[in-house]
Amino acid sequence: MTRGFFITIDGGDGAGKSVQAKRLEESLRADGIPVLLCRDPGSTRLGEAVREILLGRSEIEICPQSEMLLFMAARAEMVHETILPALEEDGVVIADRFLLSTLVYQGIAGGLPLDEIMRVGQVAVRGRFPDLTILLDLPAEVGMARISRPLDRIEQKGLAFHKKVEAGYREALDFLAEKSGTVPLLIDAAGDPDQIASEIYGEVTRRLRAVGLGRRE
Amino acid sequence: MTRGFFITIDGGDGAGKSVQAKRLEESLRADGIPVLLCRDPGSTRLGEAVREILLGRSEIEICPQSEMLLFMAARAEMVHETILPALEEDGVVIADRFLLSTLVYQGIAGGLPLDEIMRVGQVAVRGRFPDLTILLDLPAEVGMARISRPLDRIEQKGLAFHKKVEAGYREALDFLAEKSGTVPLLIDAAGDPDQIASEIYGEVTRRLRAVGLGRRE
Repeated sequence: MTRGFFITIDGGDGAGKSVQAKRLEESLRADGIPVLLCRDPGSTRLGEAVREILLGRSEIEICPQSEMLLFMAARAEMVHETILPALEEDGVVIADRFLLSTLVYQGIAGGLPLDEIMRVGQVAVRGRFPDLTILLDLPAEVGMARISRPLDRIEQKGLAFHKKVEAGYREALDFLAEKSGTVPLLIDAAGDPDQIASEIYGEVTRRLRAVGLGRRE
Repeated sequence: MTRGFFITIDGGDGAGKSVQAKRLEESLRADGIPVLLCRDPGSTRLGEAVREILLGRSEIEICPQSEMLLFMAARAEMVHETILPALEEDGVVIADRFLLSTLVYQGIAGGLPLDEIMRVGQVAVRGRFPDLTILLDLPAEVGMARISRPLDRIEQKGLAFHKKVEAGYREALDFLAEKSGTVPLLIDAAGDPDQIASEIYGEVTRRLRAVGLGRRE
């Protein structure tokens, strides 16, 4: 039997994933629901070491296959160390980025076949795909303009790349939903952050109640 | 059309892979054959960074899936940057360890299904499997006793693990040969290094002549 509830929040750079993931975590916690928030890549010592290679500002050469495999390695460790144990305890897991990012960035925008990525992804996530995949939908130029910190290696790829990412997200989300059974949820990320947080919270709590994991009094 | 000739030398720790790979490289080069020698993981900046994570003496936790994916990421970059270009020039490539190591260490000894590793391996090597896979066969206790430098993270796993590795090599070699078409060559690595080098050189040159890549006068 599948336990717990696994939510991922995905979308282009600057779409507000980290903010919304944090808001959702706080709202669910206020309802007495045990929540684990993690970020992909990251959230483990190995993941942070791989993140440094992937997103650091060094000039190291990385081909698309290798980049994809590195993201998967970080993901596999996060699944092993944090996600599966939390789900096993019937908790809610919120991941800031996950498999959908790889399908978009290394697949549709990077040129790797989506089937190839899914074959590797199946191994990395040990067959435990997200129950709900939230896509924060936002034009690439709006997202990129929102970022005020220095850009990482992937963010630096330029607007043409990020337009491909934007256009690819819906296609990849359909593909992932069909192949893995995850429920897709498209959210317009252009509006007011409070309203977006409230919309996400409403959608999530409705689904949690449906599986018996809702608010605990 | 497949070009060049791709040889991998594999076997347990202390079996003499690096020495024999180097000897073979020198002999072929003396025959005027263009040779590339590489070590897996390694031989690229990314590969060396990943090697440091995998084999460094830090206490970082790495699950079998993640370990396998990291080896594959390093391998994919080596295939991209060094192996495919050398083969494209009709050269001979000698790799010190390759896919067979992963099938044995993370598969048979580590517990991951071989089919799962091959699915990922297919992506990492872009379908260009070795033409010839040389297995240096040696009892684990003999190999481990030969190592005088400090042991790396995987070498430290103890004799019971390395006996599993030893026993797994033949099974994994049969599996790899069947799935990828690589020609398996089993060499008894217990004897005199000069005789082993001579045996390997003889087997390799015979095969190179057969594909029109032999000695150039």
